[in-house]
Amino acid sequence: MQYFRDGSSYFIRIDKDEDLFKSLESFAEAEELKCGHLSGIGALKDCELGFYHLHEKTYDRKMFKDEAELLSLDGNLSIFDGKPFFHIHTVLGGPDFSCFGGHLFSAKVAVTCEVNFRPLDIEMERQPNSDIGLNLLHFCNINPDT
Amino acid sequence: MQYFRDGSSYFIRIDKDEDLFKSLESFAEAEELKCGHLSGIGALKDCELGFYHLHEKTYDRKMFKDEAELLSLDGNLSIFDGKPFFHIHTVLGGPDFSCFGGHLFSAKVAVTCEVNFRPLDIEMERQPNSDIGLNLLHFCNINPDT
Amino acid sequence: MQYFRDGSSYFIRIDKDEDLFKSLESFAEAEELKCGHLSGIGALKDCELGFYHLHEKTYDRKMFKDEAELLSLDGNLSIFDGKPFFHIHTVLGGPDFSCFGGHLFSAKVAVTCEVNFRPLDIEMERQPNSDIGLNLLHFCNINPDT
Repeated sequence: MQYFRDGSSYFIRIDKDEDLFKSLESFAEAEELKCGHLSGIGALKDCELGFYHLHEKTYDRKMFKDEAELLSLDGNLSIFDGKPFFHIHTVLGGPDFSCFGGHLFSAKVAVTCEVNFRPLDIEMERQPNSDIGLNLLHFCNINPDT
Repeated sequence: MQYFRDGSSYFIRIDKDEDLFKSLESFAEAEELKCGHLSGIGALKDCELGFYHLHEKTYDRKMFKDEAELLSLDGNLSIFDGKPFFHIHTVLGGPDFSCFGGHLFSAKVAVTCEVNFRPLDIEMERQPNSDIGLNLLHFCNINPDT
Repeated sequence: MQYFRDGSSYFIRIDKDEDLFKSLESFAEAEELKCGHLSGIGALKDCELGFYHLHEKTYDRKMFKDEAELLSLDGNLSIFDGKPFFHIHTVLGGPDFSCFGGHLFSAKVAVTCEVNFRPLDIEMERQPNSDIGLNLLHFCNINPDT
């Protein structure tokens, strides 16, 4: 992994065989980042995807081992349990140009991964929500509720 | 819905069962926003998708009632008919990890929706274009035409 | 094509029948931009998509001539061979709301294309990597390597 900051944004290159989440987490820790938005392209492998069944409050999980084009990666950084937590959804592309995707639990970089990260000066924490069964975003500063 | 602003960007959380477009429109009105770019992830239901047939100048529309992972939501805010108008395209993911998507006409939040909105200090209005049959973006300030 | 800049970002409208990459390249040259991130929506046609086979170090390429909804376009601008180079991945939507996508080699605008471009004050160059068989990003300024 290599990354570079300009005033308002980071550019991150994660390299072949590196773990996507471990790389992003070590980036966030090194830069002391707590909140932000990210997007990226590249190619991934060993992707564990999830689909959340709200009524059962459980994720179906499935591993996709093959290399896939990373067509869309969108997500955010917040704090969960005192640590940086990346929430990422992704669309992947297969060799026949079909698409598949879901909530991304884990992945390795297959070729390269080019990520743009924009820090936000907001404190967001994930807190358990028993109705939903997931850890939802909570803004730690006072803010409008509508 | 809850939202928070840092200097250059908003983070918006839209909650279960809330209407996506009504929430975004009330956010834009409350914050007096006229132009910007947004992206987001989460889960949606009751999604009405569209595909535009240019030669017939009509949208095919189809309702997808089931909960789906919101894998990619990308769009922009402009002014149409004096009001904030969100133009959004989306990729959704099903329980078998397949993808579907289109122009998004309407949707409700299924689990949560986490949106990043970046205001732009530009005035953009949508104006009818008879060749295309749609309301296209028009920049209201003087700008280069190439 | 028309575009407008606010302090931190550009909004670009590329019009029907215009070449996507030629338009973006002429925009980058006119504005003397070297690095940045872009995303966009709209509709494209004549899309040449690629899937990279790492072991063979070759792209499979396929042309999709029909109009498709542009559901997700994500990418970045860097310098390759002294010229602005856009690396773009895309998810497209068909008339049956199915998705397909890949690395985007070329495309024309079918209806309209609405792009948000955010310049980064970073110098990134693409340089050949013989292990991967592609031109990977190289940050030209000193930066942390982890």
